[in-house]
Amino acid sequence: MRQITGFSNPLVKRVRSLRDKKHRRREGLFLAEGLRILTEARDMGVLPEMLFLAPEGAAHPLARTLIAATEAAGGDVIETSADILSKLSGKDNPQTLIGVYRDRLTPLAALDRTAAPIWIVAQALRDPGNLGTILRTGDAVGAGGLILVDDCVDPFSVEAVRASMGALFTQTISITRWDDFLAWLRAGPGTLAALSLRTDTDYQAAHYPAPTFILVGNEAQGLPAAYEEACDIRVKMPMRGKADSLNAAVATAVMAYEVLNQQRRA
Amino acid sequence: MRQITGFSNPLVKRVRSLRDKKHRRREGLFLAEGLRILTEARDMGVLPEMLFLAPEGAAHPLARTLIAATEAAGGDVIETSADILSKLSGKDNPQTLIGVYRDRLTPLAALDRTAAPIWIVAQALRDPGNLGTILRTGDAVGAGGLILVDDCVDPFSVEAVRASMGALFTQTISITRWDDFLAWLRAGPGTLAALSLRTDTDYQAAHYPAPTFILVGNEAQGLPAAYEEACDIRVKMPMRGKADSLNAAVATAVMAYEVLNQQRRA
Repeated sequence: MRQITGFSNPLVKRVRSLRDKKHRRREGLFLAEGLRILTEARDMGVLPEMLFLAPEGAAHPLARTLIAATEAAGGDVIETSADILSKLSGKDNPQTLIGVYRDRLTPLAALDRTAAPIWIVAQALRDPGNLGTILRTGDAVGAGGLILVDDCVDPFSVEAVRASMGALFTQTISITRWDDFLAWLRAGPGTLAALSLRTDTDYQAAHYPAPTFILVGNEAQGLPAAYEEACDIRVKMPMRGKADSLNAAVATAVMAYEVLNQQRRA
Repeated sequence: MRQITGFSNPLVKRVRSLRDKKHRRREGLFLAEGLRILTEARDMGVLPEMLFLAPEGAAHPLARTLIAATEAAGGDVIETSADILSKLSGKDNPQTLIGVYRDRLTPLAALDRTAAPIWIVAQALRDPGNLGTILRTGDAVGAGGLILVDDCVDPFSVEAVRASMGALFTQTISITRWDDFLAWLRAGPGTLAALSLRTDTDYQAAHYPAPTFILVGNEAQGLPAAYEEACDIRVKMPMRGKADSLNAAVATAVMAYEVLNQQRRA
């Protein structure tokens, strides 16, 4: 463990810059904040390259375990002040622990589609909470990973990391373009399924062979019509209300559990 | 339509105070921000008692419809400056429309439990986004309403209103204590069902007669053991991952769709 006390320390500036997507992508690093999420990551075998903590952050037994594991793995453990943690996190009341992790993007061509019966594909998803929640759902249903097409929110934003509750550290993540995704998909086995307002087929009436790729669209616009038309399966969920809409992460989860339920019955 | 231009106008101060739960409860009023959510409310037949807008906010055809409907219903339409809207919303870039609505709490004793086959009960829910998302799901599955027990986040917070995407204006909402809820529940028909880590019963193996009350617990702690024990049905969902957890609003939705799917097959 070493100490950094100066605001102008180059490492402080560098880590602070990871709040910005451009810098995250260039460095291949991202931030996760708080004992809970860092412990979740450790439980999944992922340790930070750098671990920043305030003196009071080291007191918790789980924090001590995390510090020891990070140092044992060759990570850099840095004790600093609450003020510098505030600067790193951009919050007045920062978490007492901030981890810097190597990002974990996988090229589409490196995905083994037969390794899992369910995959999730998100298009132009904008809300980091939704993205993190979808990762968490993907982990729960045993999905192989999350494929992001078009301009989705960054999966390595602090908010997405937090909402994923550790699933970011277990789910494979690919970022690609729609045309590239479709070409890759059609070069092997895989059923592309989407919820749609332009169908009368109930989501429980369709059959979802493994691997099924669940395609979810932008929160406000949904999927472009051409993307829906490229799907093998277009289904709708029963809607009994007046507002007649579901949160994107909720709709993805209800669909993913239907696919899982069919596959576990088979 | 009238104009308010002064920051010290008593109405500006009063409406600004509605960002605070204590004032919301005392006044029986709450805020909703943005053309989309205000239009959703209008589509459900709910109009604001007061409607604040910046001059540029009146330009959109949907805004003009909203203004006309609000005035026709006797509401107060107030044109003001972007700066005052900032003050009302507490944001640097406020929405150009802010509505003030009468809150819509229903006493437990006034609920007609037989009016819907599904009800959702949340205990100590803390995240306003989750609460709003659960309201939206409740609307989608045709739930009768949302019953909040113990200290839940305020359903009339701006964040919850936004996440509900209009469902706040259609779903009945009751706030009560656990003991009172349980006494009320047991005084009539109703099956209380919860997801639990302390059971081996799969959520698809149980039968959910109408009305089924789905009980969802706090995001971090889940339900107290005593609350689980009071349930008629305790079930688990398949978990195939490493993180092995679901967002509270997602778990509620997957459960609610299972109940709906069983009921629509019956």
